[in-house]
Amino acid sequence: MPTGFQHTRSPSTPRALENYSQLSEYELTADGDLYNVNVQPEPGKKYPDGASIDWLQEEAAERERSHALHSQAGVRGALLPALDSARMWIVVIATGIGIGLAGAWLDMLVKWLGDIREGRCAYGVLYNSVACCSGLDAGEACSEWQTWSQYFNVKSMFASSFLQAFVYVSLAVAFAGASAYLVESYSPYAFHTGIPEIKAILGGYVFDAFLGPWTLLIKALGLALSVASGLSLGKEGPLVHVACCMAYLFSRMFKQFRHNEASKRRVLAAAAAAGVSVAFGSPLGGVLFGLEELDAFASETDVMWRGFVASAIAAVALQWVNPFGTAKLVLFQVTALSDKWRAFELIPWISLGVIGGVLGTLLIRMNTEIAIHRRQSIIGDWPILEVVSASAITAALSYLVVFGRVQTSELVANLFQDCDPNKGDYHGLCNPNATKENVFLLVLTAIIKLALTAWTFGMMVPAGIFLPTIGIGACLGRAVGLVMQSVYRAHPQAWIFQSCPPDPSVRCISPGFYAIIGAAAMLAGVTRMTISLVVILFELTGALSHVLPIMICVMTAKWVGDALGKDGIYAVWIAMRRYPWLPPIHYRDKGETAAHVMRGVNELVTITDGVTTVKGLLAALKKYDYHGFPVIDRHGEYVGYTTRDVLQLAIDEIRFTEGSYSLENKICTFSKNYMLVSASNRIDMSSTLEKTIIQLRKEVSLEMLVSMFQKMNPRQIMFTRAGKLTGMATKRDVVTLLTQHFPHAAALARHPGHP
Amino acid sequence: MPTGFQHTRSPSTPRALENYSQLSEYELTADGDLYNVNVQPEPGKKYPDGASIDWLQEEAAERERSHALHSQAGVRGALLPALDSARMWIVVIATGIGIGLAGAWLDMLVKWLGDIREGRCAYGVLYNSVACCSGLDAGEACSEWQTWSQYFNVKSMFASSFLQAFVYVSLAVAFAGASAYLVESYSPYAFHTGIPEIKAILGGYVFDAFLGPWTLLIKALGLALSVASGLSLGKEGPLVHVACCMAYLFSRMFKQFRHNEASKRRVLAAAAAAGVSVAFGSPLGGVLFGLEELDAFASETDVMWRGFVASAIAAVALQWVNPFGTAKLVLFQVTALSDKWRAFELIPWISLGVIGGVLGTLLIRMNTEIAIHRRQSIIGDWPILEVVSASAITAALSYLVVFGRVQTSELVANLFQDCDPNKGDYHGLCNPNATKENVFLLVLTAIIKLALTAWTFGMMVPAGIFLPTIGIGACLGRAVGLVMQSVYRAHPQAWIFQSCPPDPSVRCISPGFYAIIGAAAMLAGVTRMTISLVVILFELTGALSHVLPIMICVMTAKWVGDALGKDGIYAVWIAMRRYPWLPPIHYRDKGETAAHVMRGVNELVTITDGVTTVKGLLAALKKYDYHGFPVIDRHGEYVGYTTRDVLQLAIDEIRFTEGSYSLENKICTFSKNYMLVSASNRIDMSSTLEKTIIQLRKEVSLEMLVSMFQKMNPRQIMFTRAGKLTGMATKRDVVTLLTQHFPHAAALARHPGHP
Repeated sequence: MPTGFQHTRSPSTPRALENYSQLSEYELTADGDLYNVNVQPEPGKKYPDGASIDWLQEEAAERERSHALHSQAGVRGALLPALDSARMWIVVIATGIGIGLAGAWLDMLVKWLGDIREGRCAYGVLYNSVACCSGLDAGEACSEWQTWSQYFNVKSMFASSFLQAFVYVSLAVAFAGASAYLVESYSPYAFHTGIPEIKAILGGYVFDAFLGPWTLLIKALGLALSVASGLSLGKEGPLVHVACCMAYLFSRMFKQFRHNEASKRRVLAAAAAAGVSVAFGSPLGGVLFGLEELDAFASETDVMWRGFVASAIAAVALQWVNPFGTAKLVLFQVTALSDKWRAFELIPWISLGVIGGVLGTLLIRMNTEIAIHRRQSIIGDWPILEVVSASAITAALSYLVVFGRVQTSELVANLFQDCDPNKGDYHGLCNPNATKENVFLLVLTAIIKLALTAWTFGMMVPAGIFLPTIGIGACLGRAVGLVMQSVYRAHPQAWIFQSCPPDPSVRCISPGFYAIIGAAAMLAGVTRMTISLVVILFELTGALSHVLPIMICVMTAKWVGDALGKDGIYAVWIAMRRYPWLPPIHYRDKGETAAHVMRGVNELVTITDGVTTVKGLLAALKKYDYHGFPVIDRHGEYVGYTTRDVLQLAIDEIRFTEGSYSLENKICTFSKNYMLVSASNRIDMSSTLEKTIIQLRKEVSLEMLVSMFQKMNPRQIMFTRAGKLTGMATKRDVVTLLTQHFPHAAALARHPGHP
Repeated sequence: MPTGFQHTRSPSTPRALENYSQLSEYELTADGDLYNVNVQPEPGKKYPDGASIDWLQEEAAERERSHALHSQAGVRGALLPALDSARMWIVVIATGIGIGLAGAWLDMLVKWLGDIREGRCAYGVLYNSVACCSGLDAGEACSEWQTWSQYFNVKSMFASSFLQAFVYVSLAVAFAGASAYLVESYSPYAFHTGIPEIKAILGGYVFDAFLGPWTLLIKALGLALSVASGLSLGKEGPLVHVACCMAYLFSRMFKQFRHNEASKRRVLAAAAAAGVSVAFGSPLGGVLFGLEELDAFASETDVMWRGFVASAIAAVALQWVNPFGTAKLVLFQVTALSDKWRAFELIPWISLGVIGGVLGTLLIRMNTEIAIHRRQSIIGDWPILEVVSASAITAALSYLVVFGRVQTSELVANLFQDCDPNKGDYHGLCNPNATKENVFLLVLTAIIKLALTAWTFGMMVPAGIFLPTIGIGACLGRAVGLVMQSVYRAHPQAWIFQSCPPDPSVRCISPGFYAIIGAAAMLAGVTRMTISLVVILFELTGALSHVLPIMICVMTAKWVGDALGKDGIYAVWIAMRRYPWLPPIHYRDKGETAAHVMRGVNELVTITDGVTTVKGLLAALKKYDYHGFPVIDRHGEYVGYTTRDVLQLAIDEIRFTEGSYSLENKICTFSKNYMLVSASNRIDMSSTLEKTIIQLRKEVSLEMLVSMFQKMNPRQIMFTRAGKLTGMATKRDVVTLLTQHFPHAAALARHPGHP
């Protein structure tokens, strides 16, 4: 090796060599790090899409920038840092206001699109039914809002019904088709919920295309269309995505975020919290969601604090626009909740928890299978057609089953309410003589919704999983509540009902609250969240006095679900997509050490201090596409680690100042006191070494290595022993380790560089 | 150096040497690590009180134990791990139930002690006023409960008043004195809130005496006495301490917790959450308190999950006993809260936030000064006398100012309630013609309470800071609310009140809610918590619909408070006591590197691989009391790190198997392939090297070093460069760095080994 550039791979492994050359466009780990150097990052951008950032490096860069600001002389030294901090707050506050307004606008758009499926306003087509009928006294009939058959003056009963159904279904299909067309043509990243990607991005994955302005626009518009089309989907996850897009857009205005991936992610974390805050009208739930599900505030209280502020501001903005006309954040306000609950009710509630855990796992499994089938079969080639058929089938089924006809949110609001003789009876739900029919209908609705949701979540439209899950759970919970109620009515004196009030006219069992419990159980089964779920459900329903049953039920559902399959739906999608995301679990090894995932030094491409020439370096940079190279000395002792970008930059600089003349034969030295090479013949490259490389011994347990990657979030860790480099492990290696239990890992992997 | 034991301290620093020898009983860092080897740990206990655990080592030990269990043959291999996990759940659930019952028992004891200050039950002295009067119909007068003057049949008005006041004050003094006597005589660790210590313990500080059964008993009993004495203190923090004592007691039953400090801390974290859950009747708030204030669940979802379970179970146990007879967890249930709030109200609310931030900081400052004065002056020598005088002064002042006469919790409950013509008027608070008098009285009460609280918190009695803080805030908030209300009544047509309902008989301003806002602001100013505060306030009051104003007010108070002084009251006490606790802040260095806190290799006592003899090693172990020693080879290259306990054990073992004969002159080798020493002449000590030592270069930024200590929680980090050991930094060094901004750091430091 005349260049002195060592590739110390042992010659006895030709097969490994072959594998390597096949994968040479990818990074270090043979099983395909998504870092693809053929995709050149845009100028000034450090990482291409698909790379993992090195948090330690980014923090170091941010620190240097901050020092530079503080060390300015005079007023500038005081003013610039303040300005810096102000810019961060501007982005956070602007995102909060922006997503609050966007959420309100979206609600109004969905309301209008939903109403237009049934009729139009006599004043003009742009009024929704509420705006059209506003200004009337209570009790006065609203003659301005006309159904389509009224508008077209169709008198015949049959023709009128047919016209209504026809407009209803065809507009559903049209909305869904339009949404899919928009997504497919203009921004394929706008499909699905977005939460798996946001989790990966917050963990250090680079995926800027996912947060672009086009994605923002298409996702918001497509979301309104797909929600209005009546497909079995919710707006929650996509709103989080929209909020992150906004924060990204605002942060692009300032260099401090454009040039630092760590700062950018801190702002994105706050935006995600604001997104949940608007989606559920749940500012606290937003912060907790960021904390529990996105793992975005790990042990940094100031980041959580920013999420708190963004969340509060978004909620204020939403309440200011007041899209529901109620001046309330609470979406499904439960008013007539009885003050007390009784111990015997824990039996049905815990049963609901078990059902939620089982059905939640079933939903995840079905959804996974369908997604993989879609990718592998011909269906994947016709995404718009799939959406159109799904919406037609959904509309038809919904029309047949009475509880499916309204929007899921309206259904949930009704199921959460207890029967009140002063209010209307929702589709005969309060009829005590029709319990059997109601239970049958509710269970049927839940089954249909379960199947439709498993199909819809993953189609080429923006789609959230929360609301449909709540819908399924609410149907089942209400059904169990109705059964309990009818048992109580039949045997009010049974010993189990002893704690009920003696007067049978006082309500003992509240089926509306059973629906809330069912929703909580189902959500816990599908998402495997705990505390944030409980908080979101409070803030949705106002059922604060019933915190304990909700907690117990969520606990049960999570236990059962975890026993059946460890991962929640977002973790499953992350594993299928193969994003480099480390779950915040306590990994327990079976006695393996770090050597288990480490790539040994003989598999690494290394630079030799005092031996490698500039020519050899350039050849290596051309030949190997790895993100960086370890530097060792001629005895194999570890000197440091350097990245290709920094090396390239350093060589370019030297070439510029000293000229190319005889540069190529000069020898690179990395340790400052290198004395074996004459000064005229060497080039000092010691400044290219990274300062924040963690070293371990390869004998440390695998558990400790995983925990190191989880907590410190470095890009790679070097292994040394008595000064000698023994190997290296990257984040990708650890991610592969943590997802290997999942049968469909990487089944849907896509290369962000090649859309 | 014939022993080959290097102490490479340069001879040019005699002063440093001298300092060292003075501090030789302490550990590595010259400024006094609290590790004191003169205090021998009990047999089988790895760390003496006052040490910091090495999380990495503890995790490694736990891992090995777990592997040993799993690798058992046959049924044992399946059963033992399950049993292991079951034991953990037993401790968590037992602690939850235990603290729930203890909390309920405490409430009843306090109620009885409080009542006995006013009178007694005719049936028997052991009934409290509620139990005495139970079984009566509504509206019926309770003749069984007699005041002391009724009981002793004192007829004269003056004598009766005097008797009542005398019994009231003297029992207060007696209770407080008894509490102080118990604490002082039997368990000095039972004084104060306990939260600073719990924070330090959860962070890795070893302080087993603080969690002993005596502390548990005395703290619970003393707490009941001191709360009943009417001193300005609450039960919240001490209850968290009691919960941790219980968990410690239960965990001692099982070897897996007794022998592993990390596992023990996971259980303690859950117990702390359960403690808050019981103290406030706030199961969610408990989990969030653990998360935000105790930083106990950092990125480990299963630990948070256990906290969640413990919290829920504790709340169920409390509700089952039902000490308040209301079957409600919500302590200060606010019923008549108006549904809407109006934008103009943000002005007084934000002002309350500012007041809370300022007064909270003032309270912290005053409390700090008083605590330091107590320690430095003669007062510190007469703790019981101080408590007795404080309780006499408190009782006298409370008797003079009408709002102080009742327990703080009762006052707060009344201040949080809005005026309702159907209910009684609390001390004329609802009289619209006495606004000025009421405002004056409320502000006066707040000022008195502020001063008394600053004095009381830190005296020789169990004392929490939450309830008095809520009391101060509620007084101020109610005062602002009354002012706003009277302004509105005077000018109902002013433009600022435009959003109020046109009918002036409908309430526009709700002074009760202003009291809640005031409490939130004051709490945020004193504790600097955010999200957990908001959740606790919800769960205390049920004011879920008003989440936004509470959030905004907490935000403001925290901003203002942080501007005036960065630390909350617990962090200040931790700094004063000098516990090795790392705050979860994002430390920003000013360009320093790790070299700033690192102790260079020439200041360290090192073992030389292949040179140091057993004799030399034993001499060193005797001479230096450091926790461990770095091992280097004869060229100064880093080989590893070993602790004194492991070294001693290894030598003892060799002595046992091989006999002492000629052992002393043998040479210790640590790297396996050491060839320079003949096999017969050396002893392989390579197994004593720790496997989980983190190495860094000393050029890494200080910020990165701090973050490494915060996230990985090691005991020490080694610095190497090109294989050579350059230095070492311990957790204590980093703690000193992070507390140096605080003027009174270590002012109250005490040595746990020397009570």
